[in-house]
Amino acid sequence: MKITRRGFAFGTMTVLALAGAGTAFGQDDTAATIGISIPAATHGWTGGLNYHTERTVAAMQQAFPSLRFLVTTASDASKQANDVEDMVAQGIDALVILPFESDPLTAPVKAAKAKGVFITSVDRGLAEEGIEDLYVGGNNPQYGVVAAGYFKEKLPQGGKIVVMRGIPTAIDNIRIEAFEKALEGSGVEILDMQYANWNPDKGFEVMQDYLVRFPKIDGVWAGDDDAALGAKAAIEQSGRQEEMALLGGSGMNRVIKLIMDGNGGFDADIFYPPTLIIPAIELTAMKYATQAPIHGQYVLDSPLITRDNAAGYYFPDSPY
Amino acid sequence: MKITRRGFAFGTMTVLALAGAGTAFGQDDTAATIGISIPAATHGWTGGLNYHTERTVAAMQQAFPSLRFLVTTASDASKQANDVEDMVAQGIDALVILPFESDPLTAPVKAAKAKGVFITSVDRGLAEEGIEDLYVGGNNPQYGVVAAGYFKEKLPQGGKIVVMRGIPTAIDNIRIEAFEKALEGSGVEILDMQYANWNPDKGFEVMQDYLVRFPKIDGVWAGDDDAALGAKAAIEQSGRQEEMALLGGSGMNRVIKLIMDGNGGFDADIFYPPTLIIPAIELTAMKYATQAPIHGQYVLDSPLITRDNAAGYYFPDSPY
Repeated sequence: MKITRRGFAFGTMTVLALAGAGTAFGQDDTAATIGISIPAATHGWTGGLNYHTERTVAAMQQAFPSLRFLVTTASDASKQANDVEDMVAQGIDALVILPFESDPLTAPVKAAKAKGVFITSVDRGLAEEGIEDLYVGGNNPQYGVVAAGYFKEKLPQGGKIVVMRGIPTAIDNIRIEAFEKALEGSGVEILDMQYANWNPDKGFEVMQDYLVRFPKIDGVWAGDDDAALGAKAAIEQSGRQEEMALLGGSGMNRVIKLIMDGNGGFDADIFYPPTLIIPAIELTAMKYATQAPIHGQYVLDSPLITRDNAAGYYFPDSPY
Repeated sequence: MKITRRGFAFGTMTVLALAGAGTAFGQDDTAATIGISIPAATHGWTGGLNYHTERTVAAMQQAFPSLRFLVTTASDASKQANDVEDMVAQGIDALVILPFESDPLTAPVKAAKAKGVFITSVDRGLAEEGIEDLYVGGNNPQYGVVAAGYFKEKLPQGGKIVVMRGIPTAIDNIRIEAFEKALEGSGVEILDMQYANWNPDKGFEVMQDYLVRFPKIDGVWAGDDDAALGAKAAIEQSGRQEEMALLGGSGMNRVIKLIMDGNGGFDADIFYPPTLIIPAIELTAMKYATQAPIHGQYVLDSPLITRDNAAGYYFPDSPY
């Protein structure tokens, strides 16, 4: 269940390209420098985030040679705050940031904004409203509603399910509240909810406990694909895989592949992927490459992934 | 006040490029065909819409040679419905549509969706929820709130303003309600609101009436730049331009230029521009060019445009 990182070219800070002014594209002849600051690839989801950042920057660089990209990765918030300050000192025009944590990054990003840097914030948001020019994030209430819809369809006569919560965060609360609300009146009953921290080992452990305690389980929502892979291992050890439907969430490559192959313990997933960095980078790049006004909020859907549409969500080279 | 259309290459349907498979870009080797269906350039805003569609398609074509674009323009809803059916018959992979009207386009777009076409709907929306994969639109409540903020700042001690409404539509209602609500308690009093239909001649006429009826006017919100240019002419005829602040809305090029020059009767505008077609086309193009999952809702802000930021909203070659 270990994720192997691809060999990234990124160091602490990597200048991906510097094009001459003569290669400028479209109406806007000014080359712009876009700084990108993301968490380092320390686990699955952030591994995917780094992968998609790398390939998107490469694609934008090829498509729009007048743009210059600086990419920094940080394994903690204070490193990330320093990265932002360094990039501002280097004269970036725009900053695309997925904050490690909201609070410690708010002041450095606000300072960047005050110096005229265009701010694109991704996923976790900043602790103060109105700093970013463009926000790109997922749809967490929908994530819970889509999960509930899966179990309502699997169990039209009702049934008993167990749930794993994630890391205790605002995002987890929003998802779980929406999930419970969407199940109301459906006859689908939640036997128990324990924290599995979006983690495979913890998912395995929580599932073992559920299997001992509950003689009949119709469904498992593990909340996340890492936890779901742990739960899957526990269920298979118990030999009870025919008894229950298992759903994770977030669109891990390995789970998508299992859905596509149709014989791996999963028939669906919910999309909340590290690919949300892609439109964040692309829209910011095109602000400069094609003079596109892009202030606003971009909220990506979290649709259900099934065998029918799985190919569109599959990235064979991604670590996640 | 007449808008001269640029000489568009677009006919009823124009194939903008057809690249060989050998020039495919990025991970996805399959060239995709993107159909674009927009209203014809019959007045200012749609003139701008056509202009930005043309330049964005050209930019995407240059950046991503493996994509093929079909662009259709329609001067009524039934023509547009036919265009959609024609493009589906030609095998488009995706459709970017700004519906002429919501109701008559809903069935043809739904039929396209049923055939597997990815649907990006822009601005006016469809009459039924859940058809489009990506929605790109403006922020109409914010439009009203930003207008109110302008007058609250101009008239910190309160004052008397007159308002012009647009064409009676849901969008106009949303804007005006948000405007009135945001003014509550500010001391800024609305003397009257008449429909000027986002039209310069009607704006002139309504303003003449206001000028006769009200001896003291501190501000005019014309709701739209076309109407505001009409109002400006009436105010100048009366010689009362020093008496009142005038605000339009939507970001017409001519008004932006007046703001930039700083001597033309406008010091601000509100952004709600035909440029919203740009990210709609670009995100859809990049879904195929860079395998970017882009299901979701993209709502563009309607910020206040002032002399400080006007250059970013100025398109000297645009008809709007």
